[in-house]
Amino acid sequence: MKFVSYKMEEKQSFSLGVVSGDETYIWDLKALHHASEKGTDYPETMLQAIEKGETFIKEVNKWINFGKSCSDPSIYQESAAEAIIGPPIPRPPKHILCVGKNYREHALELGTEADIPTDIMMFTKPPTSIIGQGDAIDPHPSLTDALDYEGELAVVIGTGGRNISREDALKHVFGYTIINDVTARDLQARHKQFFIGKSLDTFCPMGPWVVHSSLITDPHSLNIKTKVNGEIRQDSSTEHFIFPIDEIISVLSKGMTLEPGDIIATGTPAGVGKGFKPPKYLKPGDTIEVEIEGIGVLHNIVKE
Amino acid sequence: MKFVSYKMEEKQSFSLGVVSGDETYIWDLKALHHASEKGTDYPETMLQAIEKGETFIKEVNKWINFGKSCSDPSIYQESAAEAIIGPPIPRPPKHILCVGKNYREHALELGTEADIPTDIMMFTKPPTSIIGQGDAIDPHPSLTDALDYEGELAVVIGTGGRNISREDALKHVFGYTIINDVTARDLQARHKQFFIGKSLDTFCPMGPWVVHSSLITDPHSLNIKTKVNGEIRQDSSTEHFIFPIDEIISVLSKGMTLEPGDIIATGTPAGVGKGFKPPKYLKPGDTIEVEIEGIGVLHNIVKE
Repeated sequence: MKFVSYKMEEKQSFSLGVVSGDETYIWDLKALHHASEKGTDYPETMLQAIEKGETFIKEVNKWINFGKSCSDPSIYQESAAEAIIGPPIPRPPKHILCVGKNYREHALELGTEADIPTDIMMFTKPPTSIIGQGDAIDPHPSLTDALDYEGELAVVIGTGGRNISREDALKHVFGYTIINDVTARDLQARHKQFFIGKSLDTFCPMGPWVVHSSLITDPHSLNIKTKVNGEIRQDSSTEHFIFPIDEIISVLSKGMTLEPGDIIATGTPAGVGKGFKPPKYLKPGDTIEVEIEGIGVLHNIVKE
Repeated sequence: MKFVSYKMEEKQSFSLGVVSGDETYIWDLKALHHASEKGTDYPETMLQAIEKGETFIKEVNKWINFGKSCSDPSIYQESAAEAIIGPPIPRPPKHILCVGKNYREHALELGTEADIPTDIMMFTKPPTSIIGQGDAIDPHPSLTDALDYEGELAVVIGTGGRNISREDALKHVFGYTIINDVTARDLQARHKQFFIGKSLDTFCPMGPWVVHSSLITDPHSLNIKTKVNGEIRQDSSTEHFIFPIDEIISVLSKGMTLEPGDIIATGTPAGVGKGFKPPKYLKPGDTIEVEIEGIGVLHNIVKE
């Protein structure tokens, strides 16, 4: 199941839906729930849904089966093309946890062999930086001359925990989404620790939806591609992670409690703007698409 | 006013109080509100109180005046010595935002002249690391051999904003508290970016309360002292900040929206355990007291 936060008109608030396999329509979960079993608990947000865990997945399956069995299922379906898609988790319970330099070729394009990490590097991005599908990235022209993209697979934690073993780690994953870890390279360098250069408002496009873990057989063999104005800049596979997801979750949860709805961005492959000679930084009007196999395409523009 | 989260018995939930000037008793704000004006809005948590802004301060003044005017004010007062004091903001809206190396002598004790920052360094600590007055710091013996303390003045943002000028910055401060930025030095070094070494559960003792900004005439002339088992290790003044609070708020809010309840730890002076030859790291059973002039004493022990 692909869980989406969507609305059909700007003035509405976002509600929770499930995108159909062919991505043409969205099941309106609230309407399905309302029609099929009034009175039971309904999670208004993705975060609440994630906290309900496997119970929620079973309920959604039941609601959708109810929808399919109706004489006119379309009354519970909305057009995906016409929907406004928001960030799937607009307000996670903490900062987005980000792995730095998790692809060898990316570490090399920004430095030397010495920059290939032997231990996981983590930094964070605040919830105020999150935007959704199609939203505009603010280029902050008075603050940076080096606006860059980083397409990344993001993991959404389902069941929290501490000291999670590598063997159990993937069982703690609710699903996967895409993040563009937008970065002001000049601020990142100037302030040493990555936080400031990674954290400006709109610097965390996320989405378009969260794909439930049951749909991703192997998160370590997904093609990941970033295009800028249609030109392929990043083209790699999550098989090239230096630290695979089970190791990231295990290391990160050593002594630090992970919570439902926590989001971990797994790092970006080679091909960022700074890696080119001369650098190919983002400009107002640019469109950026990050596509990950089995998840979808996250597209955003740079505000003009 | 010194705002505190407290309870009188372990099984109760924390409620909001105001500590008396001599720190002997706590005004029970909920009881005062209930007795003086039932039916009006009451903030259950410090975060809600901060979001109410100046209105809340006026209301609290009114409630306390009501208490003082009663024939027996003590019915609205609890013994501070008997109270269990929790972290003033147990769940801030995002990670705690921390300035690295903001005292010249501290930068030097951990490195060389080259380590004195010319631009603000920021890293973060997750809300899961927060503990309160008297709570035990977990030494995580299987994870670190270099448990260290860092006494710090922390700023609590009252009014959010973006691109806040240095001139306006202090008007955005709700109040001040104390943070012990507990750090696993080996993890901090091994993982390059500071996050992992700073973020283990219990690594952010905070409190004992938030002192409203009206009580702190000049946040840049406060003595700050850290004692371990009574031995003075850190003894400095916030006048030695490399980056003063107005500059921190201004730089941090450039392009990044600050929100009510955000907490900014302003960095630690010289005298951390790692700065001694040989290092004086924390051991199980150690008591750590961080005292800041005009705020109070934050004390914690290392779990045995």
